[in-house]
Amino acid sequence: MLNQSAELDRLFHALADPARRAIVERLSRGPARVSELARPLPMSLSAAMQHLGVLEAAGLVRSEKIGRVRTCAIELKALRLAELWIAALRTEWELRLDRLCEYLKSLEEGDHDGSGD
Amino acid sequence: MLNQSAELDRLFHALADPARRAIVERLSRGPARVSELARPLPMSLSAAMQHLGVLEAAGLVRSEKIGRVRTCAIELKALRLAELWIAALRTEWELRLDRLCEYLKSLEEGDHDGSGD
Repeated sequence: MLNQSAELDRLFHALADPARRAIVERLSRGPARVSELARPLPMSLSAAMQHLGVLEAAGLVRSEKIGRVRTCAIELKALRLAELWIAALRTEWELRLDRLCEYLKSLEEGDHDGSGD
Repeated sequence: MLNQSAELDRLFHALADPARRAIVERLSRGPARVSELARPLPMSLSAAMQHLGVLEAAGLVRSEKIGRVRTCAIELKALRLAELWIAALRTEWELRLDRLCEYLKSLEEGDHDGSGD
């Protein structure tokens, strides 16, 4: 996990803003020009471009300039790291619950043994 | 999604820090006292408590003070919102890929019809 820590920092930081999540949601429906992405956002084009910069730095968006037009696309595989981190937590948690259940069962069995003596 | 936006902001912001993720990882293995959580972190107890405050505000951690000891536990269900948001993105993306595949197939079928005439 440790060497992916900076990546997770950038990824979660990028997702911690409603405008950036709106951009990612829009791009999940297909590539778009910067101007299209900025239009529905309640901010200037320059502010929207700053958000795009944060998303690109986190690896969530890639962009390409052809002529005078910059087009953006989502990089869904960047989200895989966040999904894996959350899944690892769940696994750890479920293992703990399993161990707790086994322990409680063993207590119950112990009780039965005791009452049978 | 909109009314959950502030919750997602707090959730992703809370996860965007390695110390806070380390606390969550530790708590996925079971409840712990504040002092136990702070010990492995490269910071003062007061700094660690600030991180715990961010995690509590995001609903990821709950704590209880009994006597002079505060014990923390993970609230894994808070992560569900992040998982749902990511899953919705994937669904949207896969629908797009399906539509693209169908379009490409229809082009191919069109080609075959053309060559058969």
